[in-house]
Amino acid sequence: MAIVLTAKYTVKPGHIDEVLGLLRDMTAQVKTAEPCCTLYRVNRSRENPDVLLLFEEYADEAALNAHRETPHFKSIIEAQVVPLLDGRERSIYDAVIS
Amino acid sequence: MAIVLTAKYTVKPGHIDEVLGLLRDMTAQVKTAEPCCTLYRVNRSRENPDVLLLFEEYADEAALNAHRETPHFKSIIEAQVVPLLDGRERSIYDAVIS
Repeated sequence: MAIVLTAKYTVKPGHIDEVLGLLRDMTAQVKTAEPCCTLYRVNRSRENPDVLLLFEEYADEAALNAHRETPHFKSIIEAQVVPLLDGRERSIYDAVIS
Repeated sequence: MAIVLTAKYTVKPGHIDEVLGLLRDMTAQVKTAEPCCTLYRVNRSRENPDVLLLFEEYADEAALNAHRETPHFKSIIEAQVVPLLDGRERSIYDAVIS
């Protein structure tokens, strides 16, 4: 069964454009290098434009675990995006109907 | 720009199978009747199996508004699913990177 990760990022004030630029690069790398990532979407809250919701779907748990070990996850998300966040909440779901 | 609605449902204890059955029917109806609904996914929390996250993407705001007026939204979600919920939290996002 496919597995879904949601990640809600609250970006530090004044850094949203920088984070969006990094996430555009990240999305391109995921699409190129991770065929078992079946959805990777970045959404921006209408209520608070400094809040982003990443919706990520993987073919299975192994693909999600592999994602976290990729060079682009380490160099873009961990090294550059996370320091620009005030908050980061992650949740895991089984994709039960699609 | 595409628009995303997330809906987090907390299902009353003992009713999850009934709600999932209704949402399977709903998903089929959305796919048949709403070509401007570009994603309609139901996900079940690993942390709390009575929590569902619906991730819905529409081509534009008009398509989201039209969704809420469909016969299947009224007869399945409003009339049958909502009475089986203890909680329902909805958020709106712009789909900025996909």
